[in-house]
Amino acid sequence: VQDLLALLRPHCPATRDAGALAAASTDKSGLSATPELVCSPRTTDEVATVLRLANETPFVVVPRAAGTGRVGGAVPERGGVVLDVMGMDRVLEIDVAEQIARVEPGVKLGELQRRVEELGLCFPPDPASAKDCAVGGAVATSAGGLSGAKYGTMKHYVLGLTVVLPTGDVIRTGARTRKSVTGYDLTSLFVGSEGTLGVFTEITLRLVPKPEAAATLAAWFDDDASARRGIDAALRVRATAKALEFVDARALAAVAAHVGRPEWGRRAALVLVECDGAAEAVERELSLYETALAAAGANVERASSAQGRDALWAARRAISPAVTARWPHRFAEDVCVPRTRFVEMIGELHRIAGEHGLQALGFGHAGDGNIHASVLMDRGDDEERARAKLAVAAVFRRALDLGGTLSAEHGIAMTKREFLPLELSAANRAAQQAIKRALDPRDILNPGKIFPGS
Amino acid sequence: VQDLLALLRPHCPATRDAGALAAASTDKSGLSATPELVCSPRTTDEVATVLRLANETPFVVVPRAAGTGRVGGAVPERGGVVLDVMGMDRVLEIDVAEQIARVEPGVKLGELQRRVEELGLCFPPDPASAKDCAVGGAVATSAGGLSGAKYGTMKHYVLGLTVVLPTGDVIRTGARTRKSVTGYDLTSLFVGSEGTLGVFTEITLRLVPKPEAAATLAAWFDDDASARRGIDAALRVRATAKALEFVDARALAAVAAHVGRPEWGRRAALVLVECDGAAEAVERELSLYETALAAAGANVERASSAQGRDALWAARRAISPAVTARWPHRFAEDVCVPRTRFVEMIGELHRIAGEHGLQALGFGHAGDGNIHASVLMDRGDDEERARAKLAVAAVFRRALDLGGTLSAEHGIAMTKREFLPLELSAANRAAQQAIKRALDPRDILNPGKIFPGS
Repeated sequence: VQDLLALLRPHCPATRDAGALAAASTDKSGLSATPELVCSPRTTDEVATVLRLANETPFVVVPRAAGTGRVGGAVPERGGVVLDVMGMDRVLEIDVAEQIARVEPGVKLGELQRRVEELGLCFPPDPASAKDCAVGGAVATSAGGLSGAKYGTMKHYVLGLTVVLPTGDVIRTGARTRKSVTGYDLTSLFVGSEGTLGVFTEITLRLVPKPEAAATLAAWFDDDASARRGIDAALRVRATAKALEFVDARALAAVAAHVGRPEWGRRAALVLVECDGAAEAVERELSLYETALAAAGANVERASSAQGRDALWAARRAISPAVTARWPHRFAEDVCVPRTRFVEMIGELHRIAGEHGLQALGFGHAGDGNIHASVLMDRGDDEERARAKLAVAAVFRRALDLGGTLSAEHGIAMTKREFLPLELSAANRAAQQAIKRALDPRDILNPGKIFPGS
Repeated sequence: VQDLLALLRPHCPATRDAGALAAASTDKSGLSATPELVCSPRTTDEVATVLRLANETPFVVVPRAAGTGRVGGAVPERGGVVLDVMGMDRVLEIDVAEQIARVEPGVKLGELQRRVEELGLCFPPDPASAKDCAVGGAVATSAGGLSGAKYGTMKHYVLGLTVVLPTGDVIRTGARTRKSVTGYDLTSLFVGSEGTLGVFTEITLRLVPKPEAAATLAAWFDDDASARRGIDAALRVRATAKALEFVDARALAAVAAHVGRPEWGRRAALVLVECDGAAEAVERELSLYETALAAAGANVERASSAQGRDALWAARRAISPAVTARWPHRFAEDVCVPRTRFVEMIGELHRIAGEHGLQALGFGHAGDGNIHASVLMDRGDDEERARAKLAVAAVFRRALDLGGTLSAEHGIAMTKREFLPLELSAANRAAQQAIKRALDPRDILNPGKIFPGS
């Protein structure tokens, strides 16, 4: 251990300070393991040197950005060196005419959004952690958020990367241009690779013009059947809303208690729709949703001002703190199903939890089928956790039966890797692991993540 | 050779018929090489069997769809077996509520567009060859077209693939859902891989609602400086046009002569803008472009009816036949530069051609910087071809100097592979080739394409 510090310090800022090790040992998954060392590179060369030395020595390297991941991607489960890129936090360029931003991986996503909006542009991916997460981590998980159905996720915005490969070789992928088919699309392979294929040191992002206007509606339902009819009708609207959000009764009850709005707790479901774009179109598109949801029996409120829209979003925004306060012990998953099965899958979530003697709650992005599905625990003891885990496995199986996927935006890393074979065949996993071996022959970069038993 | 036919015929329809071999020997690159055999599989299993046998024997396999590629991707330069997927031409499913289509690779892209439009949906990628090209080939090159700046290219629409790997293993990639981060994004790796990493036998595509309205304007310029100011102003409009097309004077002159519209031949440039979306927004957005282009000195005509829009597109549509008739000998490239350098690069194209004693013409997608750049030859003899090739190399270098890329939509395959090192470093190519070897250890699937000297 002493040797590793002596080896790396001449090449890259490094520390074995207990506080730094503790800070680098966990992420929002709650999993934890202590690294031997934390390196804090400021340049691509420093990252490359650490990885070259890792191959020679060898030692394990785990890249880390803001640590807001939910599946253990940044947890150094095999010890080794955590490579903390948060010191590389410069916005290198925002080119308004070209609609491009070039940033280092440690730039906060919310900071990037703010900077480009001041210039009349917009960076659409907007995960719940936007204020805290870093662009590098968002790229590593292909983070999404509320606006995925209309605007896609990180992978639709990364034009190019500077990547330090596991061997220490530095490459540039992609281009500054909107189109490029020069060679394989390595950029997309690195996006969402959860820190296992390379370390991003520079990220070129596509921006879009800031939408001129936005309008929001909140549709409150008093029974599940009406809510389901409402979502079905909303999905048939000939327009693409920026957000089409669903919140179930249990999430509403938690929010109502948390923020003191008991009337919210008496509703069966809340559907939020936000449209954006050209002003006239936005109002008319939102009216299409309003008509569809009202016909299904919803009580609809609508707002176009920033303040009014904000008030409509209040219940949705309060879910995460309310649920965390009420149920400190829960499994919070992010399955995705075909969007026409979204409400059905929320029902299945509750049925499965019940069969395991547990409760669940669900909310999420009905526009793209992405459910934030929580299996709730009262005590969180071993017995209850084991039962909850069985319920989670059954939820995954059911989502896959409906044509879904294990993870829409969190990733696999540690918490879901045991379930990977439910979705990906042995041949598929073999192909992916062959690519991992081709790029990381010594298995030094974030080894063991994603693939079970690797 | 006889043995290969005997080996394959029990497993997959196969022929050595001279006509079939000749048809499978070339594509729109003009390059040609005769295969030993043409196989015409109808099922994923048949494709898998051919590839398994190819590994055991071994023999080379070159996948082929409609043969409309421009860079030799389907040319069997090392002989072997051409795997013609055009018999796999079923539209397996169009799910309107889910906005998904599932097709076999031999479905014509234009046929898919027509089928989904009848159902109120739209499949945006629209390469010039849409009527003739097949979805499988469009996926293999990540084809684009006029609407790339607003709608992206094939890679933004492929949700999942059934792929027969070079080893004969069959995998499914991606999902039916809008979001999935379960494992590496293999789907994107296969899209644009030019038939070197796998054979697609089933393709799941994302669809979008059919835009309610569209409107078009044609802006005619009488001098280059005004045209350049016009494009600069159009790129600053706070909206994203479906198409922002530019046609230079030499292309206009060829069109004018070809279709008998001499007035077109007296113009310095034509800019076409098409906006689509909600009706009110479309007219206002188009007005923003009209104002910008008129202020730069353009003479603007505008249309919203299908017939009127069609008339405005006439000059643009006639370019390809007109130029092919006038200059049977030319190098037609598809470089891409940052969009703010588009007009500058058209000027550089002419300058470079002139320095080589040649003429050039340029047109293309100013909205995404994609130039269809032709270096023209009068005789097409060896001396002139050698000179034109030097000019093409200089055009590539200049495009790269401006931050561009060798290919926006055609690919690399054979015609551009010698230039690949101009854009991709040795380390980048080594990483790509390591992936190729990982998935195709015997190098049997379309070997030698993309990478020089491989």
